[in-house]
Amino acid sequence: MRVYTEFEDVGYSPCGIPYVHGREIPAFENLILQDKDFYAQQRIDVHYTTRVTRLDLRQGAVEVEGEGRVDFDRLVVATGFDYEPPGVPGDALTGLYYVKNIRRAMEFDELIEEARHVVVVDATPLGLEMATALAHRGKETHLVDPHPWLLSEVADPEIMKPVEDSLVEMGVQMHLTTRLEGFLGDGKVRAVSTSAGEIPADLVVVCTPKQPNNRLAREAGLQIGSTGGIVVDERMATSVEGVYAAGDVVELPHAVTRVPVQGLTGSHAYAQGKVAGTNAAGGRRIYQPVYVPWGMVAGKWMVGGVSFGETLATALGVPFVVGQAEGISRARYYPGTTRIRVKLLAEPKSLRLIGAQLVGGEGIKERCDFLGVAVWKGITIEDLAYMENVYSPAIGALSEPIALAAQNCLARLQR
Amino acid sequence: MRVYTEFEDVGYSPCGIPYVHGREIPAFENLILQDKDFYAQQRIDVHYTTRVTRLDLRQGAVEVEGEGRVDFDRLVVATGFDYEPPGVPGDALTGLYYVKNIRRAMEFDELIEEARHVVVVDATPLGLEMATALAHRGKETHLVDPHPWLLSEVADPEIMKPVEDSLVEMGVQMHLTTRLEGFLGDGKVRAVSTSAGEIPADLVVVCTPKQPNNRLAREAGLQIGSTGGIVVDERMATSVEGVYAAGDVVELPHAVTRVPVQGLTGSHAYAQGKVAGTNAAGGRRIYQPVYVPWGMVAGKWMVGGVSFGETLATALGVPFVVGQAEGISRARYYPGTTRIRVKLLAEPKSLRLIGAQLVGGEGIKERCDFLGVAVWKGITIEDLAYMENVYSPAIGALSEPIALAAQNCLARLQR
Repeated sequence: MRVYTEFEDVGYSPCGIPYVHGREIPAFENLILQDKDFYAQQRIDVHYTTRVTRLDLRQGAVEVEGEGRVDFDRLVVATGFDYEPPGVPGDALTGLYYVKNIRRAMEFDELIEEARHVVVVDATPLGLEMATALAHRGKETHLVDPHPWLLSEVADPEIMKPVEDSLVEMGVQMHLTTRLEGFLGDGKVRAVSTSAGEIPADLVVVCTPKQPNNRLAREAGLQIGSTGGIVVDERMATSVEGVYAAGDVVELPHAVTRVPVQGLTGSHAYAQGKVAGTNAAGGRRIYQPVYVPWGMVAGKWMVGGVSFGETLATALGVPFVVGQAEGISRARYYPGTTRIRVKLLAEPKSLRLIGAQLVGGEGIKERCDFLGVAVWKGITIEDLAYMENVYSPAIGALSEPIALAAQNCLARLQR
Repeated sequence: MRVYTEFEDVGYSPCGIPYVHGREIPAFENLILQDKDFYAQQRIDVHYTTRVTRLDLRQGAVEVEGEGRVDFDRLVVATGFDYEPPGVPGDALTGLYYVKNIRRAMEFDELIEEARHVVVVDATPLGLEMATALAHRGKETHLVDPHPWLLSEVADPEIMKPVEDSLVEMGVQMHLTTRLEGFLGDGKVRAVSTSAGEIPADLVVVCTPKQPNNRLAREAGLQIGSTGGIVVDERMATSVEGVYAAGDVVELPHAVTRVPVQGLTGSHAYAQGKVAGTNAAGGRRIYQPVYVPWGMVAGKWMVGGVSFGETLATALGVPFVVGQAEGISRARYYPGTTRIRVKLLAEPKSLRLIGAQLVGGEGIKERCDFLGVAVWKGITIEDLAYMENVYSPAIGALSEPIALAAQNCLARLQR
């Protein structure tokens, strides 16, 4: 088995890069999970810094820079994502940083050290991670986003409010409802131009949304969907026999809405890669529909959800009822207890759960995992209202916040 | 509405007492959630330090010390639990402490301050909480239990091993497979006599299993079940019309085995009380079958589960297959990541989840809540093997430990 990558490294966690910048993780070396020998020992023949220029699917071959035509029996396309280009003048200036490659991250980390003013463009998940990291580093950090609240593409405003407040507390300067208009400078960036004026910038971290890096696939004639992702079936098979795809380059229908989604998490990419690889090797595995539980640390909070919130459901025309509550993570007298706000969305009649949003100080990832399975399995608001929960002062409150939100939903419907 | 209690106080959390002894919580006053005015304002007429001596159900009255006969239309019996008597000589000595009443706890906390040698009898959940608390206080602490491992009535040995090791690390002296034979002393306890010899003791904390405090109910002819708990239906109604019961004095069938269980958690008592009270007041509410998610901090770990583990399933003759894994709570390079060991039990053919046991450093309560709902809703090992999970380095690992345990179960079955 041969793997081509244009990069110098594999087997590290790019998801950890913001936390090295923030110094929660001491060094980039900590992110390296397997060295190159590991793959060699597994008889995976990785060709590093090697660019594939063309897929010739009719002939069952790929064209490789420096190697010529290379035949294949089965092909897995995992070309990942690119950041959406900012689409404004000045994007060729130096000092613009796109978080992706660990070697570039090492270089930029030194520039961060020297920088005084840093601008983060777009309040995406990565944008929030980078703003949090830069605040930890004590930099004057500006966050610019055209929408009125953080993570506006996935989360609801009241869920993101504590996150925004905490970032401001940490010193991040918010420029919301602010359109990026250009990068200013002479060779090197010195400011960012926005609809609300200029912001001085020694460095800009561009955290625009991810888009599928689909050039090779598109040129080869693989079917591309409405998001730009490669269309795959449940076996991660593309429109061409023997060609599979996985990760950020594919799109999949969202299990609730059937709307195609792309740019999911590393956990999704990992699971898809296993399915695509197994099937390419002659096995038979199915990738389950996605309900997209998500979660992250942003500012001083953990925030997460499943499927969609009120904003996105409304935009999609999905009817719903809402249940909300603010609970706590441990007994209210126990040290370290934190608020947990839960918002549940359900189908109006069946009361089947269809989405959720949470913000709190602990236990967000585990609750989102649970609620992801709950949406998948048709669990209802009534089920959640009467669920049993662990109660022990140091680890859980008498009433589970999810159950409280469900109870409030039922109470509102009965009125 | 009138409430009789033989105690001086209501509206505090007895579950928090061990944590005041351990000084995680600074003072007993922190455990008081509502003062007496609160109940008066709610028009709940609480008669404190008032003993009910007899229930005359035929006449619809109770006999109250100092008040005589008091008629009722509806009655809720919530007489709670007593600790199983140790059943050995010397149990009338002073220096034996039963954790229950906050005023006694305040007195005993001062005795703990002076004590050098403290013996905890029985490695029950409370026994582990108290041993942990006494170790935090720096006391020479001995834990005596007749069984070969901790929490042997609910948990499996390998799940409890890290807890045992951590208690030993904290200085607790373990006396497992050790039978209690008596309390020695002259007026005041000075030692505990066991099958393995004498242990010096200035104080003994008696943490024997809880048994229903059923005297009034039994004498009044209410139907009592095999555990000693009052038998109730799904409305928390007893065998006598108009009489309800809730909390530690009742027994309920375990939803998986139908075996009656009693002595559940404060969260169960709270939910049962709401159902009993609603129905007694003419409403209509149903209490759901119990799958008993549980969890606690013991030593340096969190431990928990749902339903039962291998030991109890075997004892009950319930057939099962097992899936186990050791995962991690955050990315392996992220600070604060901890091991999480998961053990899942499922029906052999359907692979429906029937029980679980977990031990780890964080996220145990939330996972046990989830798995409780999973058992209830018939979720299978296959579902769990392919569940989506949140991945974000600071809050969750690439692979969810529950999913890993389920995947291992499937892999074992395929071999």
